Amino acid sequence: MQINPDKDTQLCMSLSGRPGNFGLRFHNHLYEQLGLNFYYKAFSSQDLPGAIGGIRALGIRGCGVSMPFKEACIALVDELDPSAAAIQSINTIVNTNGHLKAYNTDYIAIAQLLKTHAVPKDSTFALRGSGGMAKAVASALRDGGYKNGLIVARNETAGRALAGSLGYEWQAELGQRRPQMLINVTPIGMTGGPEADQLAFEPDTIAAAEMVFDVVAIPSQTPLIVRAQAEGKRVITGLEVIAIQALEQFVLYTGVRPSAEQFKKAVAFARAA
Amino acid sequence: MQINPDKDTQLCMSLSGRPGNFGLRFHNHLYEQLGLNFYYKAFSSQDLPGAIGGIRALGIRGCGVSMPFKEACIALVDELDPSAAAIQSINTIVNTNGHLKAYNTDYIAIAQLLKTHAVPKDSTFALRGSGGMAKAVASALRDGGYKNGLIVARNETAGRALAGSLGYEWQAELGQRRPQMLINVTPIGMTGGPEADQLAFEPDTIAAAEMVFDVVAIPSQTPLIVRAQAEGKRVITGLEVIAIQALEQFVLYTGVRPSAEQFKKAVAFARAA
Repeated sequence: MQINPDKDTQLCMSLSGRPGNFGLRFHNHLYEQLGLNFYYKAFSSQDLPGAIGGIRALGIRGCGVSMPFKEACIALVDELDPSAAAIQSINTIVNTNGHLKAYNTDYIAIAQLLKTHAVPKDSTFALRGSGGMAKAVASALRDGGYKNGLIVARNETAGRALAGSLGYEWQAELGQRRPQMLINVTPIGMTGGPEADQLAFEPDTIAAAEMVFDVVAIPSQTPLIVRAQAEGKRVITGLEVIAIQALEQFVLYTGVRPSAEQFKKAVAFARAA
Repeated sequence: MQINPDKDTQLCMSLSGRPGNFGLRFHNHLYEQLGLNFYYKAFSSQDLPGAIGGIRALGIRGCGVSMPFKEACIALVDELDPSAAAIQSINTIVNTNGHLKAYNTDYIAIAQLLKTHAVPKDSTFALRGSGGMAKAVASALRDGGYKNGLIVARNETAGRALAGSLGYEWQAELGQRRPQMLINVTPIGMTGGPEADQLAFEPDTIAAAEMVFDVVAIPSQTPLIVRAQAEGKRVITGLEVIAIQALEQFVLYTGVRPSAEQFKKAVAFARAA
C-alpha cells in the first residue's frame, strides 16, 4: 500500500540533539502499511525558533521533540495540552493550519502503562531521577493516584523540588527502604553511557520488589531489567514507553489508530535498524 | 536501489504558490535509481522569510523556488550565482552548512538548449513576454551572443525595460517582422489558462520561421509547438526547459550527474503523474 510521494504528501518530523532511527522507521512503516500519504524525517537544529518557525511556514503537520528542546519549545507554541502543561515539558507538536498545540506523549504512555500492567495504586515506589523524564513519570504516577512515592535523586535541589511539587518524599539514596515498585529514570544502563553496565538499584532491593520499571530504551534489556526478569519480577521496559509514545504521536498526526498487530509490527520494524 | 529513510536522509524541497508533481517525481525517482539517501518534498507557504529560515534551521539541502517567490527570495539568501545575479531572479537555493547560495537553473537550461540545438548566433528572433521567465530567456540569448532580438510585449513599461537592459528592440506587436526564431514566454497555450487553445504567433509568422521555442511545459505540445512541427520546423519545448533545469538542480543538490539514459527515464517517470 505504499504511496508514491506527490504534491499532497504531508511531512512529519522530529527535532532532537542527536536524531535516531526509531521514530522515523516507526512512522514511515505505518504510513506505508496504512496507505497514508505522509513522510517522516528526522532533523536536528542549532536554531530552535527558526526550526519551529519553519514548521509553521512550511505547514509541517507534526513534530516530535526530544532532548534538549523539550522545555525551550514551550514558549514557541500556541497551546499546551494538559499532558504537557502539567509537567511543563513537551515532546509532540501538532500543527493545524498554523496553530501549534503541544502534547507530552511520554506522560500519556506512562499513564497507559500503569493501567495496562495493572499496577496496584497502593504500591510503594521509589523513582530514581529528577530530570524532565522523571517529571513526566512522577506526574503520571501522582495523577494515577499513586500516593506512596519516594524520589531518589543525588541532585538535592531538583529532587526536593520534584518530590515537593507532587507530594512525594525525597532522599539522596534509597537506604534501607524496600519499595514494591522500582522505577529508573536515569541514564544508568543506557548504551554508550558511563554506567551502561550498572544496575540502577541494588540486587537486594530488586529481590525485595514486585515490579521494576526502567525507562531506558537503548537497550530495553538493561542490566536492571535483565536481573528483575531473572528473579521473576514483573517489568515495564523503556521500549514500551517509546513505542506507545510514538503510537500516540502517530494518532495525533494522522487521526488514524493502527491495530494492535500493525503497532506490534511497526515496533519490530523500527527496532530492526 | 531504494534507500530506507534513516536519520541521515537529506531533504530537498520546492516552494511555490501552486505545487506540482513534476519536480518531486523527477528528483525522488533519481534518488532511488542512484541509491542516494535523499527525499524531495513540495511545499507552499504564506510566509517566505519563515520558510527560508526553516531551510536554514533544519539544514534542508536544497530548495526549488517557483512563482511567486523568485524575486522575493533574493533578499533572504547569502550569495547569488552569476546565473541568478544577471537576471535578479532565482529558482534554486543550495544550503551548505547554513550558507544559502542561489542559482537560476532556468537560465542555465536555456543557455544549454541554445547550444545543443545549435541555434545559429546570427538568427533573428522575436521573444513574446516580459515577465521573470522572459528575463531569464532573453538574458541567456544575449549572453549566448544572439544580437538580433526583438522583445514583443503588450506591457510597454516591462517590455521596453527588458529590451533596453539587454540591447534588444521592443514592439507591442510583431507586425510585419518575420524572425527566424520565434520564442514564446507567455502563458499562451498553457493548460488551464484563458488562452490554452491559442497560438502564441500567427500561422504565417510560424510558416516563415526556421525554429520555434515555447517555454510552456504543460502541455509541452502547445498549439504553437504542434503547428510548428506540422510545418516541419525545428522546435525546443518547455518540457526540455523544465527537465534540464531540474537536472541541474539535482546536480547542485547531490553532486551527482545522472547518465543521459537515467535522465530520460526520470523525465518520463515525472511526466507520468
